[in-house]
Amino acid sequence: MKSKINILIAGGDMRQIFCAEKLADIYNVKVVGIDREFSGTDFPDGECDCIVLPVPPLDENGNINTPCSDDIISPDMLKNIMKKDCIIFTGRYDKRLNELFPYNRIIDYMSREDLSLKNAVPTAEGAVQIALDELPVTLSGLSVLIVGMGRIGTALAEILKGFGADITVAVHNAKGAGKARVIGIKSVCTKDMDTDYGLVFNTAPELVFDRELLRKFSDDTLFIDLASRPGGFDFDSAAELGKKVIWALGIPGKTAPVTAGEIVAETIINILSEGGD
Amino acid sequence: MKSKINILIAGGDMRQIFCAEKLADIYNVKVVGIDREFSGTDFPDGECDCIVLPVPPLDENGNINTPCSDDIISPDMLKNIMKKDCIIFTGRYDKRLNELFPYNRIIDYMSREDLSLKNAVPTAEGAVQIALDELPVTLSGLSVLIVGMGRIGTALAEILKGFGADITVAVHNAKGAGKARVIGIKSVCTKDMDTDYGLVFNTAPELVFDRELLRKFSDDTLFIDLASRPGGFDFDSAAELGKKVIWALGIPGKTAPVTAGEIVAETIINILSEGGD
Amino acid sequence: MKSKINILIAGGDMRQIFCAEKLADIYNVKVVGIDREFSGTDFPDGECDCIVLPVPPLDENGNINTPCSDDIISPDMLKNIMKKDCIIFTGRYDKRLNELFPYNRIIDYMSREDLSLKNAVPTAEGAVQIALDELPVTLSGLSVLIVGMGRIGTALAEILKGFGADITVAVHNAKGAGKARVIGIKSVCTKDMDTDYGLVFNTAPELVFDRELLRKFSDDTLFIDLASRPGGFDFDSAAELGKKVIWALGIPGKTAPVTAGEIVAETIINILSEGGD
Amino acid sequence: MKSKINILIAGGDMRQIFCAEKLADIYNVKVVGIDREFSGTDFPDGECDCIVLPVPPLDENGNINTPCSDDIISPDMLKNIMKKDCIIFTGRYDKRLNELFPYNRIIDYMSREDLSLKNAVPTAEGAVQIALDELPVTLSGLSVLIVGMGRIGTALAEILKGFGADITVAVHNAKGAGKARVIGIKSVCTKDMDTDYGLVFNTAPELVFDRELLRKFSDDTLFIDLASRPGGFDFDSAAELGKKVIWALGIPGKTAPVTAGEIVAETIINILSEGGD
Repeated sequence: MKSKINILIAGGDMRQIFCAEKLADIYNVKVVGIDREFSGTDFPDGECDCIVLPVPPLDENGNINTPCSDDIISPDMLKNIMKKDCIIFTGRYDKRLNELFPYNRIIDYMSREDLSLKNAVPTAEGAVQIALDELPVTLSGLSVLIVGMGRIGTALAEILKGFGADITVAVHNAKGAGKARVIGIKSVCTKDMDTDYGLVFNTAPELVFDRELLRKFSDDTLFIDLASRPGGFDFDSAAELGKKVIWALGIPGKTAPVTAGEIVAETIINILSEGGD
Repeated sequence: MKSKINILIAGGDMRQIFCAEKLADIYNVKVVGIDREFSGTDFPDGECDCIVLPVPPLDENGNINTPCSDDIISPDMLKNIMKKDCIIFTGRYDKRLNELFPYNRIIDYMSREDLSLKNAVPTAEGAVQIALDELPVTLSGLSVLIVGMGRIGTALAEILKGFGADITVAVHNAKGAGKARVIGIKSVCTKDMDTDYGLVFNTAPELVFDRELLRKFSDDTLFIDLASRPGGFDFDSAAELGKKVIWALGIPGKTAPVTAGEIVAETIINILSEGGD
Repeated sequence: MKSKINILIAGGDMRQIFCAEKLADIYNVKVVGIDREFSGTDFPDGECDCIVLPVPPLDENGNINTPCSDDIISPDMLKNIMKKDCIIFTGRYDKRLNELFPYNRIIDYMSREDLSLKNAVPTAEGAVQIALDELPVTLSGLSVLIVGMGRIGTALAEILKGFGADITVAVHNAKGAGKARVIGIKSVCTKDMDTDYGLVFNTAPELVFDRELLRKFSDDTLFIDLASRPGGFDFDSAAELGKKVIWALGIPGKTAPVTAGEIVAETIINILSEGGD
Repeated sequence: MKSKINILIAGGDMRQIFCAEKLADIYNVKVVGIDREFSGTDFPDGECDCIVLPVPPLDENGNINTPCSDDIISPDMLKNIMKKDCIIFTGRYDKRLNELFPYNRIIDYMSREDLSLKNAVPTAEGAVQIALDELPVTLSGLSVLIVGMGRIGTALAEILKGFGADITVAVHNAKGAGKARVIGIKSVCTKDMDTDYGLVFNTAPELVFDRELLRKFSDDTLFIDLASRPGGFDFDSAAELGKKVIWALGIPGKTAPVTAGEIVAETIINILSEGGD
């Protein structure tokens, strides 16, 4: 027996369809603004308990972001569907939402720690996929540097262990070194790091690879930046020096949309079962 | 060339000797209150920059804790050796120290996060050693439950992966589940956990295994508790029910004293290079 | 100082260039029939000690196989370059070679066990790359079946462990089950295998997946066949049933040409240092 | 419903009891010569289809080896129990058996490859247990050498990976190097090996560590020899030089008797289901 909660998925990419499918196991779910077949459960206007908006939620015109549909969905259309105390789940903070829906609870599911942890896995897998696609050598035996020992750095290290790569983690402090040791990886202090690596993943959200540092690496080294804007590289210098840097953003939705959608759904389920954030 | 910092190691077990050896690579180090040969560097009274006390620092008489010596070292003896601004490193908070040395900086190295992280490794190795010693079956293919996904739980999971154990982690919430996923381990919510495990490690510092829960496990299950006092078990019920529970405390110092001592030394080096805590 | 052995690399793809580069570290190496710059060492006609032919060695006209050049290299041209006792290394047995060079030693480097073992690694990495490219879900937590516990099956299992996949190996007999246990993987007898896997790798060189068996799998299952001709699948039935089967042949040369070339070079070095096969 | 095969377990240690328990799941099993309670199924004299003898099968008087009982079991007593075509399973070849039972099929289960493969796992776990018991440092980060890349070397490498040890395998030839690469471990040729290892496992059944080689290692290095007689060490020189060498024989039965017994049982089941060897 399904819960009586009515959820509307509005806009977004394939990830939101897979999110809808997972949510539909326990709630009444309807989808708008994605041109894909979805056999949800209808519910009347004014009866919607939760709306799930995509990443990012709004386009430049202030309408719902609908990259997979030509439909235009305005905030007003959502207001017709919503219950008075409808919860709005958004895939990123956007102050326009607060202005549009001043009386509703707005929850940014992308800022939840459980989602970030889970997303580290598809992100790391996607990053390794890029490395496999780009490199003419095997990861086995390759000297690999991971900058940062957070969620994504940890997930990367686990995967690369299986490949038999020779992994070093660059960390800022003794705590980072301790985290590396816990998962059995050797570490080096970022400021003392060597440069003889065939593959470098950056996960640190700050400028690490400036012109001077980049210059010391071989032209064969592949750099993959997983940090969000502004990224960890002096990209202009990298281009001038002929270094190969790939800035991989938004991996989970691109390379593992089913898993990424399920993670969003699980997070929403967790939030609702906790009684909201 | 050695730094001019003079350090006195006062009391403690073998761990402190190995700590002294490591510190002696860069500082002038002297040892008192451990009956073991140590070829340190002498320095005059009144010239000591740092004193390193053991875990715990004081005995019930208020003297330095010297389990490996019959020497009695009183706090007053230390005062003679100390510089005025001598830093006191202690292996656990003890308010008597604050009374004895009111004008000195007292730093509890055991409470440092980098030390806790690093100590997770010898603790996990020691716990696995106990399991190997006690179990008449291989860890390979064994169904193992780890309660808690903190430092020690993570270190245990990494080691047990290598053995080919079938590992499940019991966690409290979505964040714990996310951490398990990052290192590729399946998780279950503590309150929903099954009981058909051949080996259970508890790392959660709270009563998890009460009488009712213990009753559901097989008598063949081996339980190893790594939580500090009061531990995660109703030990009386466990004894009455004939369950095999081993409460393993203070592992790093017992099973890997060299590594444990080096970790203390590294922590002190880090603190001094940071200019104190 | 280089050895005085003179080696000619004749024809082939990029792999042969990387092979040439590695061999050039210790021998005099010249390349013909690949339109790529290569700064080798010249040697006079009639002074060639070894010729390295590609995979396969000859085209349908009986000339050297030169997929990366429009040059035509006839066996007679090679005869001019060869010393009388020149060793011919070939990338596959071809009886025409025996007829063309009846008095020379002909060694098939592709049939060497050390090469097969080493090639298992780039093959497994390439297979995992295909899986990452094709699947909309993460390998983490995915139920994966590997058919066969030989070199490639073992290399696959090692890599997939790092991803946190739930791996089962299908084996024919108790020996296969034992090999799986040695590397900590659970096994099942091929004839009793379940069919609820999201990803299946076949490494067994025989028909395993016939119509009846394929029918039992979900349409979402991705099958990757790594067996050489005739492959492990009833491909016609798979197509009719709408099953997704990718037959991945010649992976090492395609996805990791540098490593693949180095492996050929190492094998030739080993053979020469052993004094020939 | 049980099979009608009647099996007698005669003599041996605890391993044989656990073997009996596993066999009793599918056959009628009776135990003699082990003073341990076992609730088997009785069958009349002259009706025994198989006899399982221990490792080794006979004592110096030619009676069945009964280390866990004061009972004396003579071969003649077994003859009374046996069917005419009774199969005799023995835990090692002993030519006296062929003289005693010239008309019976005698199968040495210890020489079966599936048993050897499976026994590699408890052997490797037991070896790691010894290392944990003996070493004052963690395996994490320790430089470990494994000599030999067979079953036991492979199983050791897998376990030590989980500990985050820095593993090198010493191999004789290119094939060994290939096998190491398949499981993601670096290798070195035995004759070129370094000597700066904290822990060395030998699995090669030949003299590797002679006086000259041993001399080059640190006195802190722990050596564990897993090779059967005559072992891989010049033990006299090792003792004279003060090197710490542990010769660990018969591990599976000692450290994991349940698993070791089950492996014997599985092997017997496999042999019977194949219709004998």
